[in-house]
Amino acid sequence: MSITPEQQSEIDAARAAPSRTLRATAPGMEQHLYKAVPVLDHGFVRVVDYMGDDAAIVQAARVSYGQGTKKARDDAGLIRYLMRHWHSTPFEMCELKLHVKLPVFVARQWIRHRTANVNEYSARYSILDREFYIPAPEQLAAQSTVNNQGRGAVLEGAEAAQVLEMLKSDANRSYDHYEAMLSQDGQQGLARELARMNLPANIYTQWYWKVDLHNLFHFLRLRADAHAQYEIRVYAEAICAMVADWVPAAYAAFEDYRLEAAQLSGRGLDAVRRMLRGEEVTQESSGMSKGEWREFAALMQL
Amino acid sequence: MSITPEQQSEIDAARAAPSRTLRATAPGMEQHLYKAVPVLDHGFVRVVDYMGDDAAIVQAARVSYGQGTKKARDDAGLIRYLMRHWHSTPFEMCELKLHVKLPVFVARQWIRHRTANVNEYSARYSILDREFYIPAPEQLAAQSTVNNQGRGAVLEGAEAAQVLEMLKSDANRSYDHYEAMLSQDGQQGLARELARMNLPANIYTQWYWKVDLHNLFHFLRLRADAHAQYEIRVYAEAICAMVADWVPAAYAAFEDYRLEAAQLSGRGLDAVRRMLRGEEVTQESSGMSKGEWREFAALMQL
Amino acid sequence: MSITPEQQSEIDAARAAPSRTLRATAPGMEQHLYKAVPVLDHGFVRVVDYMGDDAAIVQAARVSYGQGTKKARDDAGLIRYLMRHWHSTPFEMCELKLHVKLPVFVARQWIRHRTANVNEYSARYSILDREFYIPAPEQLAAQSTVNNQGRGAVLEGAEAAQVLEMLKSDANRSYDHYEAMLSQDGQQGLARELARMNLPANIYTQWYWKVDLHNLFHFLRLRADAHAQYEIRVYAEAICAMVADWVPAAYAAFEDYRLEAAQLSGRGLDAVRRMLRGEEVTQESSGMSKGEWREFAALMQL
Amino acid sequence: MSITPEQQSEIDAARAAPSRTLRATAPGMEQHLYKAVPVLDHGFVRVVDYMGDDAAIVQAARVSYGQGTKKARDDAGLIRYLMRHWHSTPFEMCELKLHVKLPVFVARQWIRHRTANVNEYSARYSILDREFYIPAPEQLAAQSTVNNQGRGAVLEGAEAAQVLEMLKSDANRSYDHYEAMLSQDGQQGLARELARMNLPANIYTQWYWKVDLHNLFHFLRLRADAHAQYEIRVYAEAICAMVADWVPAAYAAFEDYRLEAAQLSGRGLDAVRRMLRGEEVTQESSGMSKGEWREFAALMQL
Repeated sequence: MSITPEQQSEIDAARAAPSRTLRATAPGMEQHLYKAVPVLDHGFVRVVDYMGDDAAIVQAARVSYGQGTKKARDDAGLIRYLMRHWHSTPFEMCELKLHVKLPVFVARQWIRHRTANVNEYSARYSILDREFYIPAPEQLAAQSTVNNQGRGAVLEGAEAAQVLEMLKSDANRSYDHYEAMLSQDGQQGLARELARMNLPANIYTQWYWKVDLHNLFHFLRLRADAHAQYEIRVYAEAICAMVADWVPAAYAAFEDYRLEAAQLSGRGLDAVRRMLRGEEVTQESSGMSKGEWREFAALMQL
Repeated sequence: MSITPEQQSEIDAARAAPSRTLRATAPGMEQHLYKAVPVLDHGFVRVVDYMGDDAAIVQAARVSYGQGTKKARDDAGLIRYLMRHWHSTPFEMCELKLHVKLPVFVARQWIRHRTANVNEYSARYSILDREFYIPAPEQLAAQSTVNNQGRGAVLEGAEAAQVLEMLKSDANRSYDHYEAMLSQDGQQGLARELARMNLPANIYTQWYWKVDLHNLFHFLRLRADAHAQYEIRVYAEAICAMVADWVPAAYAAFEDYRLEAAQLSGRGLDAVRRMLRGEEVTQESSGMSKGEWREFAALMQL
Repeated sequence: MSITPEQQSEIDAARAAPSRTLRATAPGMEQHLYKAVPVLDHGFVRVVDYMGDDAAIVQAARVSYGQGTKKARDDAGLIRYLMRHWHSTPFEMCELKLHVKLPVFVARQWIRHRTANVNEYSARYSILDREFYIPAPEQLAAQSTVNNQGRGAVLEGAEAAQVLEMLKSDANRSYDHYEAMLSQDGQQGLARELARMNLPANIYTQWYWKVDLHNLFHFLRLRADAHAQYEIRVYAEAICAMVADWVPAAYAAFEDYRLEAAQLSGRGLDAVRRMLRGEEVTQESSGMSKGEWREFAALMQL
Repeated sequence: MSITPEQQSEIDAARAAPSRTLRATAPGMEQHLYKAVPVLDHGFVRVVDYMGDDAAIVQAARVSYGQGTKKARDDAGLIRYLMRHWHSTPFEMCELKLHVKLPVFVARQWIRHRTANVNEYSARYSILDREFYIPAPEQLAAQSTVNNQGRGAVLEGAEAAQVLEMLKSDANRSYDHYEAMLSQDGQQGLARELARMNLPANIYTQWYWKVDLHNLFHFLRLRADAHAQYEIRVYAEAICAMVADWVPAAYAAFEDYRLEAAQLSGRGLDAVRRMLRGEEVTQESSGMSKGEWREFAALMQL
């Protein structure tokens, strides 16, 4: 269960009480507000608040570029132009606040994106719940043999069973001992700020995370990517679905110019131009290293 | 006139069309939305959007510190506690977006606060209007004789008149030449990105400026301070009035713990403690330099 | 052992080979370069590089304030003035790069300071060593009874022994299972990015951390404070000792105006002024809440 | 004259006095230290300090990725890999501090890059010199007829002469009046913080600017680009030449993967793949708008 009954009743109460506002309102996002989207076995993402919509991006761009832009392009076209030419500040004019419940090892990756505001549940102050991420069997993957940082085939049979057993029993024993150390029943009870050190990295934590749309797109480009670790990618994908409803024009431009886009190096660009002129290009004549050429050939589907 | 008729009709239209939202709404801020507050002779500040309210600060703090805080303190008390103990992240959960029209020399000071999002009107792309800041007579102050960075007495008589005459005629001549250089009437017309270099620092520009409440408080503490230059202080004061209506509990804590607060150095603290015990303390016995002691004595109203 | 023989020989080699440079050099810091200062049971801090010195702070301030400052004050006096009046940008002109080995739960607190550059050892890419923080007996403290976030008396006897036993055995069992899951001996071997989730928060990680002096002082003010958790405070204290040798004038100003300083609220300032005039002030007549008055009275040693 | 005799003698003194240091030293950068490279008519860029070299980037990457990387790749190959795959943190481990003298309208563009440390000469505190940027005749360009934000053909004959005359006479008159307003000769003298508002945007200012290599590359990619305004591009190009000597491997990777690289959108990538398979692709069948197709065709040299 990813949400407590108490949290659910708070969500229900919030959703039952609309207010009147003069602010820009995004109907596609209103439907998501407060609802927790389940992610992994005990995690979730839910929208707590948002600022702005597609029109707010356009409005900010027109402050910068003046009225001339008004006639020349419709809103979606202007947003595509801004995205294509790396204009970041208009996208910073939208803001999103999420409540996320996630395993600690995912949180450690996530927090490396520094341009966001975070309030995390404090295990120094409060006691964590007994909730651990245990991968689904189809996610129990072997170390990749071609990539130091990635997964290979799914584990099978006895090995898979043994891994799951170790993860579960270690998590539970660690939590039993966490409780035992904290207990003030017939003893002093260890400080919470110390006892937490016994807990493994698959325990769940939660935070409020607030970020502007430009920096969110940067996060999503890296974390919704096929090379991102599965356990953070599923959060990114859940957020992508919300953003697509919130700012549909900006999200469509993001898909085309970022998620599905590719970077060609100077050498790569030169190779493509030559190939389009009918020239034969090989790794040797491209000036690329073997690794670069392999990536280039895969990208171009040669 | 600080707002164009076209801008006023946009404001009127926006204010006439409330939407329903499930988001947190701050009634005190709704009344300010879009209305331009005049500042200086042609400038203004207006709220374009906001996210969060006092309750959002409390809510974020409770994610961090758990349910224990719920019983212990009421919201205003918790907000005072957070402010007193320099907890910054809960205040980052609120966000404000302003549209500001301001002289370029004020914008240059303002932009030094880097933790904000900005979209400024581009004089590379568009043509600036003929609007210049000309100080009111009571603001035409002489250089301070005690402070390298400040103002002394107000200029009088012929000197004041001469200054105003120079400011006005130079501004107008510069703008006449700006137009002449840009003109494509019988000539090619200089590029806008070059012509703008002829304009003085008292010309007005405008921008959208978006910032979280923690960083806004930091800005206001420095710029609503008596030592800030008058021309930026009036903007800060206009924003203070809005923030007081938006997040009244947070603003009250900000006033007490920042605006009206004072920092005592280790030496200053030691001096106060000794004086409260009845000891006589002098500059020499305080360990402070003469300048520090002068500031200390003024602060303590000795 | 906090450093491997391989790391020590790298340090020795680096220290044996000085170069000539035209850059500002801080003799007090040169003596620290590369040497690892042990912290906790397996951690360390070592200076990898630095930029600037006290003179660099002064030089930057003089770019801002012009030559007038040159005659008026000596360098240490100017640095004290800058610190007293919250001028932050001159301090940003110095930069420090550290290599730190620290338990994961300390790293999680540390990383909340976002204005720094970080490269952390990747447990997605590489295998962590079997090294865990186990508190020394005098650090095994009970939960504070007066503060939700703090420590009380040291645990004694059987309780202490039991806590240590649980921490050690859980750490070792988790690591045994981590190795067993990774092993490719007769099985596929779990992906490293998954196996790491079994490791507890007292395992050691390491990173390069680079920060400017202004933001470092902010970090040190919070983390070298008596209210900071002991396990991060010892790192902050080790860094303080290095900074005192690197920029002695700036560090002395930091001690007086930050570490040993105190903030008085508007109400607190008013109370002190009245008391210095001989007036009797009580909690009621001060306008402070009970909690604020208690903190105020403690600060003033009433 | 871009440097005062006093500044030159400071430079000479600094260059005459090398110190011994244990820090990483970049011989290619030592030769640039302190020497001012002239830019525009009165501006300059000079290196005041630097931290790190190519090896520091590699060293930071190896902290993250462990020893495995040591055997697999040489340093330049690893740096290319990091740049290709958008690993930003290792590049953040190098830092550069510059002293720049530049026209105010260039400074206003430059400061929009927020992730840097800045100390600017304060015209509130000190008096600016009579130095203005007056474009060379070959830079006096007309407004572009195809781009709202750009230059067209060079102005000729009477128009060019008239523009130069207006720029020069307005600058001088503004400065004469600035001096007249400040003068305390027989009058009070206007406050410096007010008098500065009369100065045009082509007056020179100066600052210390400190930035890490990742953010510097971002700045250079935007500002050394052919679409950047000439007056900032010449500063970017001067910095590029220094960086190429400082971190040659990183700069070579930056050239290939950023400066000379191109971004293909999802639609663009699809079009290229189809064309490489021998398919005919037109604007209509590409899914691109006319503007996008025009940019795409120019990029691919179709």
